[in-house]
Amino acid sequence: MVNVSSCSTEKQGCVRDAQNFVARYLHHTPLWHSSTLSTLVGRPVFLKMELFQKTGSYKPRGMLWAIQNLSAISRRAGVVTFSAGNAGQGLAWAGMHLDTRTLVIMPSVANQLKIDATRGYGAEVLQHGTPMEAAARCAAIVREQGMTFISSYDDMDVMTGHASLGMEIIADMPDTTDIFLGIGGGGMAGGLVKALDETGSKARLFGVEPEGAAAMSASLIGGAAVQLEAVKTIADGLAAPGAGNSCFELVSRRFEAVLTVPDDAILEAMRLLMTRCKVMAEPAGAAAVAGLLQHARKRKLGDAVICIISGGNVDPSMLRQWL
Amino acid sequence: MVNVSSCSTEKQGCVRDAQNFVARYLHHTPLWHSSTLSTLVGRPVFLKMELFQKTGSYKPRGMLWAIQNLSAISRRAGVVTFSAGNAGQGLAWAGMHLDTRTLVIMPSVANQLKIDATRGYGAEVLQHGTPMEAAARCAAIVREQGMTFISSYDDMDVMTGHASLGMEIIADMPDTTDIFLGIGGGGMAGGLVKALDETGSKARLFGVEPEGAAAMSASLIGGAAVQLEAVKTIADGLAAPGAGNSCFELVSRRFEAVLTVPDDAILEAMRLLMTRCKVMAEPAGAAAVAGLLQHARKRKLGDAVICIISGGNVDPSMLRQWL
Repeated sequence: MVNVSSCSTEKQGCVRDAQNFVARYLHHTPLWHSSTLSTLVGRPVFLKMELFQKTGSYKPRGMLWAIQNLSAISRRAGVVTFSAGNAGQGLAWAGMHLDTRTLVIMPSVANQLKIDATRGYGAEVLQHGTPMEAAARCAAIVREQGMTFISSYDDMDVMTGHASLGMEIIADMPDTTDIFLGIGGGGMAGGLVKALDETGSKARLFGVEPEGAAAMSASLIGGAAVQLEAVKTIADGLAAPGAGNSCFELVSRRFEAVLTVPDDAILEAMRLLMTRCKVMAEPAGAAAVAGLLQHARKRKLGDAVICIISGGNVDPSMLRQWL
Repeated sequence: MVNVSSCSTEKQGCVRDAQNFVARYLHHTPLWHSSTLSTLVGRPVFLKMELFQKTGSYKPRGMLWAIQNLSAISRRAGVVTFSAGNAGQGLAWAGMHLDTRTLVIMPSVANQLKIDATRGYGAEVLQHGTPMEAAARCAAIVREQGMTFISSYDDMDVMTGHASLGMEIIADMPDTTDIFLGIGGGGMAGGLVKALDETGSKARLFGVEPEGAAAMSASLIGGAAVQLEAVKTIADGLAAPGAGNSCFELVSRRFEAVLTVPDDAILEAMRLLMTRCKVMAEPAGAAAVAGLLQHARKRKLGDAVICIISGGNVDPSMLRQWL
């Protein structure tokens, strides 16, 4: 489970190397002003439309950089991850473009759209149990088959690749004051910390977790990354089995707060994004907006508030139940 | 029902005057390449994302220009239109920005989201009967109350304003070969003809109508604009009570074809836009894609095919029934 990186994560310029590399494959996603949200919270609010990224989420950013940093031998043996589906698609898409065999272990109840898309990008998909059981099965496969495990969050190379998301935000809006983002295991969060460190940005970071999958909040209370016994939320894209150790280190050092929101607030944010912004965010993609709307009044926000919207992989049959 | 225009529709430069005027208020909406659609039809396909326009559809383009061209006396007396909701929002939004009182007559079954948004932009909304009955009520109000009627389609100033949509397409992609667009009464269609005339573009135009509201197809067969006895389609945004006379003249002169699609094909196109492009188009906004998918094989298309996606005003409770 060890990655060989061509670029130490402490080394100057590594985040920029990753950014340049992923820019060869991925979109620099747009940053939109939202009149509706700005009116609702009384500050200028912008949306980083990462659901328009390849595969519908930010995940291929880190996966591309992590695979790129593997040895040729490891790449020939293939890579594996566990995922509710977005990281799986990210791994599969990156593997397809970097000629690397990919295997994705998904929970048995995974969203069919994500399963089909992951297979469509060339990965083998194995469905198994709960998110925790899928993670355990993934670990067993790594031991037995000699494939390389790439965590979609608790991996320094993955987070360095994910940092490209933050680099785009700061490039487009250098005076960003506040960034709201969903937290699952903490991979995007860690990437954002790396980007702000790299650029010297003073933006405040606010993580948003579903109440039923609040591993990072629990970790901050306990002072160490915790694994959850169960997760229960409609936001499958944020239902990681626990917080990553290295993610926790970065989040606890740099985040202003990690907030929790109930699933109802996430659904309300999805409806708002759909009816007002005309975009189809999945629950994980709407969580940042839910957190902003629920907590904006209690926080002193600045003049350039950003919500990261990732992803957009909604199964129509699930959406029908949510509307 | 007569508009006083400051700029004759035959006059050189009028389309560009309108374009410059609406650009002060509205977005130049993006043109996106769609990998999914390009693969499906075997040609490069681009989407003109007009559902991101103010009010969620192209309608304020023409409404702004039409109101701007009214006399001060007419503007003080107020303007009225009949609409399933998108033209109503467009009129209301334009009136709000040009200090003009607006009244919108909508069918009794109109989408609640559109009613609320129209009122939100400051219009008075009156609901009445079928689309045909709403149109008749609108005509009665004009006679009785002295308000100025602005047809959302059969009006040269409105179409000149709508032409700005086509001007943006040609500016962004001068070598556009084929444009697919939904047709209701024919206002967008007429605007596109004006834009292609103005720019000298040789792009082919393909109109797409729901089978249950195919007024323009019937008009082309009969050789004159027809009114329908009834309309029945999920695409309320294309369910005009008939084809406009001046729209018909422009369409019959310049369009390659007007195609019809069943509601099922429109729903399939909505799902594709939602799951692959992450955007929430209403049925009227998905019709162009439905037409492209259904008819692409029978047509010899070029290397820059465009589908116009307008609008994006979906009522979540209706969406639930459609999924």
